[in-house]
Amino acid sequence: MTDRSEGPELYFRCHVFCCTNVRPEGHSKGSCSERGSVRLRNYMKARAKEFGLQGVRINSSGCLDRCEHGPTMVIYPDGVWYHYETREDVDEILETHVIQGRRVERLLLRSGG
Amino acid sequence: MTDRSEGPELYFRCHVFCCTNVRPEGHSKGSCSERGSVRLRNYMKARAKEFGLQGVRINSSGCLDRCEHGPTMVIYPDGVWYHYETREDVDEILETHVIQGRRVERLLLRSGG
Repeated sequence: MTDRSEGPELYFRCHVFCCTNVRPEGHSKGSCSERGSVRLRNYMKARAKEFGLQGVRINSSGCLDRCEHGPTMVIYPDGVWYHYETREDVDEILETHVIQGRRVERLLLRSGG
Repeated sequence: MTDRSEGPELYFRCHVFCCTNVRPEGHSKGSCSERGSVRLRNYMKARAKEFGLQGVRINSSGCLDRCEHGPTMVIYPDGVWYHYETREDVDEILETHVIQGRRVERLLLRSGG
């Protein structure tokens, strides 16, 4: 475990990475983008802007290597992972995790899972 | 500051995001990819594999919004940011930060900088 009390001041207090990886059609693993992650990440970014959230960034990323749970996102520095499928999922993650600082239990990916 | 002692077990103990954002040629901000970040990120990924590092992931990401310092990367959960230009920079970040857990002072981006 990293003890953040000895870490640097955070540039973003909440840094979200949504996998938007693309794989060739028919690939056995599929991909997060194939499951709607680009659209949902764009929605999340727009909603965060609407909320006027400071110190929050909603990034796209390459493959996060948990494709079987896709679409996936990870939120740092917390190191919390979510699966999401709908705009309602994204809203809940924004409102509950990003704004209120609590976990969205129903969407959590468990470590090693 | 987030206290990681109360956080979840980390899926990746060291999760690196290298900005590989592309902007149209001539854009006033330039972009990390224009400054070689794709090539350097690919090198970093290959080197991490050569080292056989466990629990480490070298991801690409969209724009990290610190373009003026590009190419940039951020390493979580530490929340430490680096500027890098060469393979030697990447090797030093891997060996000093990722493997030994110390900062590469000469390449650090300071918060707010």
